[in-house]
Amino acid sequence: MNRTDTPVTVIGLGLMGRALAGAFLGAGHPTTVWNRTISKADQLVAEGARPAPTVGDALKASSLTVVCVTDYRAVHELLGASDVELDGTTLINLTSGDSTQARQTARWAEQRGAHYIDGAIMAIPSTIGTAEAVILNSGPRADFEAHESTLAALGTVTHLGADHGLASLYDVAGLAMMWSVLNAWLQGTALLRTAGVDAATYAPFARRIAAGVAEWLPGYAKQIDSGSFPAEVSALETDARAMAHLIEESEAVGVNAELPRLIKAMADRSIAAGHGGEQYPVLIEEFGKPRAD
Amino acid sequence: MNRTDTPVTVIGLGLMGRALAGAFLGAGHPTTVWNRTISKADQLVAEGARPAPTVGDALKASSLTVVCVTDYRAVHELLGASDVELDGTTLINLTSGDSTQARQTARWAEQRGAHYIDGAIMAIPSTIGTAEAVILNSGPRADFEAHESTLAALGTVTHLGADHGLASLYDVAGLAMMWSVLNAWLQGTALLRTAGVDAATYAPFARRIAAGVAEWLPGYAKQIDSGSFPAEVSALETDARAMAHLIEESEAVGVNAELPRLIKAMADRSIAAGHGGEQYPVLIEEFGKPRAD
Ligand SMILES: NC(=O)c1ccc[n+]([C@@H]2O[C@H](COP(=O)([O-])OP(=O)(O)OC[C@H]3O[C@@H](n4cnc5c(N)ncnc54)[C@H](OP(=O)(O)O)[C@@H]3O)[C@@H](O)[C@H]2O)c1
Ligand SMILES: NC(=O)c1ccc[n+]([C@@H]2O[C@H](COP(=O)([O-])OP(=O)(O)OC[C@H]3O[C@@H](n4cnc5c(N)ncnc54)[C@H](OP(=O)(O)O)[C@@H]3O)[C@@H](O)[C@H]2O)c1
Repeated sequence: MNRTDTPVTVIGLGLMGRALAGAFLGAGHPTTVWNRTISKADQLVAEGARPAPTVGDALKASSLTVVCVTDYRAVHELLGASDVELDGTTLINLTSGDSTQARQTARWAEQRGAHYIDGAIMAIPSTIGTAEAVILNSGPRADFEAHESTLAALGTVTHLGADHGLASLYDVAGLAMMWSVLNAWLQGTALLRTAGVDAATYAPFARRIAAGVAEWLPGYAKQIDSGSFPAEVSALETDARAMAHLIEESEAVGVNAELPRLIKAMADRSIAAGHGGEQYPVLIEEFGKPRAD
Repeated sequence: MNRTDTPVTVIGLGLMGRALAGAFLGAGHPTTVWNRTISKADQLVAEGARPAPTVGDALKASSLTVVCVTDYRAVHELLGASDVELDGTTLINLTSGDSTQARQTARWAEQRGAHYIDGAIMAIPSTIGTAEAVILNSGPRADFEAHESTLAALGTVTHLGADHGLASLYDVAGLAMMWSVLNAWLQGTALLRTAGVDAATYAPFARRIAAGVAEWLPGYAKQIDSGSFPAEVSALETDARAMAHLIEESEAVGVNAELPRLIKAMADRSIAAGHGGEQYPVLIEEFGKPRAD
């Protein structure tokens, strides 16, 4: 069932908030909007959105309110105002923040009688409203499911679990993967350029490796969950020798070697801790603990 | 045409050399073998391989010789011996090394009248002989093509170009991608474990992100080759703010933050160089130059 006559409110009409409100409107939802700088609502109002004079009025207009402002400080400023009534309403907070802020805000909102879902948007404004836009949600499953069909107007919406911190954690974990694939590709592109190979020639090779290694992750995850790391494919000690090649090659052809050196430093520490005969995922022990530097 | 009666010689019968010789034998090639420690040939000889008494004899037995020993020093020790005749033979050197060693060894071998291909094995011994084993080759195309059907017994063999340094460069570039995907996955796994999410639950998410980002590389490569980096998707400055979130989140939940910090340090340097309004691939300028540290 995809009820498109369910009213929804959007608070915060920056680049992202406007895209969110536009997607709700486009899907046919009666959409109420509010923004501190009211002029940012003009275009949406011309398209049929209803401008609310105050945050309190905006919240009253729908049982579901999506909040998307700069940061959690702004969220608290807006929702903590004296004329704002949260009792019985459902808040979906898509503002970027960390897991601690998400959990604290959830407690704060729930104490005021609100249903609270913390979300993270893994997308850029122009893709909102298409399946490409991934929106992660965390909090009580029933609260998510009650509004899932409305939220579906925004893109691919998924529920990660009851812990309100999950959306933020998955979000930054996904970003770490994104930047790591890009950086490894840049490292390789820089290496190959020294031999006159252009980026377009090298890119398909990098793409195949990244996609291929991605397939190993579920299998490697089993080693982590079982806490046992037999060297079925290769031992960390063997990997470390190849890491030394990567560093030497980078230095020899005159490209940056910081990423190669970090890769080897992590492995060397694990080997020093006695794991040289085990397999790569044993490095989870190094990644799992802080290091002052 | 896949002539399996072409004789081939394998020099070096370590873990990898034995797998290579076994694959040639399995495909039906008359296979001559030599190893410093001769006992390592026993099993292969029982399976039909012909042991050669000296390196010189091994080379004479076939017009194609595959060399796979520890390092290039060993290659030169073996092939530089006085009784070794290289004139007219084809050498495929699958020993790991760097691009400089490959180019120098090519010159050295060609001066002695040999056809020389430098290769790199992106596989573990147990996969040799299957399509999963990728073997990169670089050197004169005609020399590669003359033996391509024989080499096909080893796995997926590809020719990268005439520059003998290419196999080594692609090899380390591919390894950098492999370790980077694994490390980003470990970073995410460590983050999620603090919220009680097990590795198996998180792995499919990491796999999707890695495979998805891999698809962007050919498009991003066009920006690098054109030297123009308009912020079509997002500006580096915006990325840097999210990188700060990744660092803060890692520190807040008590996991290692070195990889997040390196990611941000590279971006910050590029922003300091005036590229904050451009798109991520502009970082190629940072990756392309050495940094003393
Ligand atoms: N843009 C993206 O590509 C993207 C992608 C994923 C996630 N996000 C996240 O989405 C959120 C919004 O991003 P954006 O791109 O829309 O940012 P933006 O264009 O800079 O808009 C910021 C919004 O927050 C409002 N705001 C800030 N401080 C406020 C306060 N104290 N009181 C009331 N309103 C306040 C602004 O109101 P005024 O208009 O009155 O200034 C504006 O509506 C951020 O957390 C961002 O990290 C963005
Ligand atoms: N194993 C892998 O997973 C893998 C994957 C990709 C690439 N590689 C590369 O393949 C090459 C061989 O690896 P491997 O795993 O087979 O190593 P290995 O098991 O340690 O075998 C080393 C081989 O080199 C020979 N050798 C070393 N120094 C020599 C010298 N001075 N004179 C004559 N022979 C010498 C050894 O002879 P003895 O038997 O007499 O000691 C042995 O045959 C290396 O460059 C490695 O990086 C290996």
